[in-house]
Amino acid sequence: MATVEELKLRVRELENELIKCKQRQCAAEDAHNRPKIDKMSAEVVDSNPYSNHLGFSVVGVGGVGSVTAEMLTRCGIGKLLLFDYDKVELANMNRLFFQPHQAGLSKVEAAEHTLRNINPDVAFETHNYNITTLDNFTHFMDRISHGGLEEGKPVDLVLSCVDNFEARMAINTACNELGQIWMESGVSENAVSGHIQLIIPGETACFACAPPLVVAANIDEKTLKREGVCAASLPTTMGVVAGLLVQNVLKYLLKFGTVSYYLGYNAMQDFFPTMAMKANPQCNDRHCRRQQEEFKKKEAERPKVEAVQPEEEEIIHEDNEWGIELVSEVSDAELQAASGAVPDLPEGITVAYTIPEKVSGDTVEETEVSLADLMAQMRKL
Amino acid sequence: MATVEELKLRVRELENELIKCKQRQCAAEDAHNRPKIDKMSAEVVDSNPYSNHLGFSVVGVGGVGSVTAEMLTRCGIGKLLLFDYDKVELANMNRLFFQPHQAGLSKVEAAEHTLRNINPDVAFETHNYNITTLDNFTHFMDRISHGGLEEGKPVDLVLSCVDNFEARMAINTACNELGQIWMESGVSENAVSGHIQLIIPGETACFACAPPLVVAANIDEKTLKREGVCAASLPTTMGVVAGLLVQNVLKYLLKFGTVSYYLGYNAMQDFFPTMAMKANPQCNDRHCRRQQEEFKKKEAERPKVEAVQPEEEEIIHEDNEWGIELVSEVSDAELQAASGAVPDLPEGITVAYTIPEKVSGDTVEETEVSLADLMAQMRKL
Repeated sequence: MATVEELKLRVRELENELIKCKQRQCAAEDAHNRPKIDKMSAEVVDSNPYSNHLGFSVVGVGGVGSVTAEMLTRCGIGKLLLFDYDKVELANMNRLFFQPHQAGLSKVEAAEHTLRNINPDVAFETHNYNITTLDNFTHFMDRISHGGLEEGKPVDLVLSCVDNFEARMAINTACNELGQIWMESGVSENAVSGHIQLIIPGETACFACAPPLVVAANIDEKTLKREGVCAASLPTTMGVVAGLLVQNVLKYLLKFGTVSYYLGYNAMQDFFPTMAMKANPQCNDRHCRRQQEEFKKKEAERPKVEAVQPEEEEIIHEDNEWGIELVSEVSDAELQAASGAVPDLPEGITVAYTIPEKVSGDTVEETEVSLADLMAQMRKL
Repeated sequence: MATVEELKLRVRELENELIKCKQRQCAAEDAHNRPKIDKMSAEVVDSNPYSNHLGFSVVGVGGVGSVTAEMLTRCGIGKLLLFDYDKVELANMNRLFFQPHQAGLSKVEAAEHTLRNINPDVAFETHNYNITTLDNFTHFMDRISHGGLEEGKPVDLVLSCVDNFEARMAINTACNELGQIWMESGVSENAVSGHIQLIIPGETACFACAPPLVVAANIDEKTLKREGVCAASLPTTMGVVAGLLVQNVLKYLLKFGTVSYYLGYNAMQDFFPTMAMKANPQCNDRHCRRQQEEFKKKEAERPKVEAVQPEEEEIIHEDNEWGIELVSEVSDAELQAASGAVPDLPEGITVAYTIPEKVSGDTVEETEVSLADLMAQMRKL
């Protein structure tokens, strides 16, 4: 029979083993071995990424937003604000990023944990709420305008990776009021198409200027799901869209290459239409109209370059030469007449209208009603 | 003072707590909570992915290969063979997939661990070796021809995600001999371009038929790295290429959409050239020539469809209608004359020649020598 002393020894052994086990468990969960880098130099070296002076807000941390956040984190940005109110579900495993053991965690919490392990030098700020409710919307506006890399300054870019019209409109409203440049992304529910779009308040069309544009898929639903065969898959389409989005972000902020104002992805045909669309002077958002006035003033104040023969009617091809596309393919006249006629969109792009569902919230419906109807519906909002 | 009974109780408590902790630790390390699915039905439902009857070999588990493997795993394929001989390094953290705590592990081991957690229903087989040495090459050929979903049968597709010419040529040689269809992928070292390519032995050009094609970047190196600013980033470009690759895989094997024979990605201009190239009757690989003879025989035996006015000279546009592109844009005559002249490639695609480095192995050099030189060099191999 064990003596009191032997039992006391056993208790101490077990207590020590338990402490060690708990430490190992933490290490397995929080396995970031790399220490933070003390000071970043201005030079581009492997240990010191080039975009560490930038702060981003990613709204929506789902199939596109999570991969977008991971790409930015691995590029070595300075600060990342994440907004989402969903929880990770096992049904999300058909997209990249989240893992089965994270099911039940909030998406922002799970994402921050994974991303901090990957790159502890990024400053993370997470907000587990729906930006469309009034209080949260006010807080959201405050954080994108004051939560940049330097507290008190705005973020460099807001990235919309949400899956519904209501959330897109909330971001649109906030960015118009703040004059905040943002990029939008989207993937169709059947995963066969997607797009990215750069919105510069006052300069390019906002979400209240014209109905959102989507990529025409030209597919027969029967072909899409015949013989138990699904079409294009979510991890692939969402991975491509996130990659195109972050690439465009880097091109825009780090000033290289041709920035795309609108870039579509038709997965069925490997077709990638591009276009640009000016802001609509008749836009219903008064902040958009104010930004347009300010943009006009700034343009007028800019030193004039030597007069060159204008080539406004020239069609921009996908294979156009080096340089940023600034010519709008949708004219002001077309936009002003937009409540009466569909603007002349490039092949492969069409208007969509996403109606927020009243009951269960998150899914997006795409209907093919006329632009007149769409604009009328939009005004009612 | 504690009695013997109290101490015994405490020992039992601690023992139980320790067991629980060890279980949690295992769960944290090997977090697959979802049980394997016992039996897959033929129907497409969330819990039962559609591509579980397919087996793939992914050669090269780096920036493109790892994401490719993750996408396939999340699509719910049946079996995945991984080939690589590299170890995970902290320098790989500027690409997707691997995490800092995996540094030091072999890439195939680290990838299998992550992927098995994501989807325990996939059967994994890993080979931590260089396929270009003689013994390994023989074993590699054996596994792609016998290690399919059903042991003894070939894999459905070999995916090349390697970063050097020597490994690509090894895959090319193996696939020509076996008549194994494969897809190739590549990303330029500066990350501003990439491509995917479908190779059907005997039908489309193999890597010995013509020099590899790359996407022209049209960039000035000064623009690319001015003011401490890097251009297009590795996680974005590699994420896009992996997405386009796996999308093309699914389109080809599950028979939907337009399969791309060659799809390029020019990240600087968001330009995506496509083309197709027939096998070269003068190819130096005798197995390629044999496959061409067999393909001709099969074509001749196929029941003839009603004669339609041939439209061989029609140019395939990127936005061509539904259907698989089967018209080669590079004619036989052009290919036969290829040792004397550069074939008429679509805008944005150019020939590259990747010379395997003798000393340190892995990097790829792109030179702009004439096609005549390239073909001559190739023949010497």
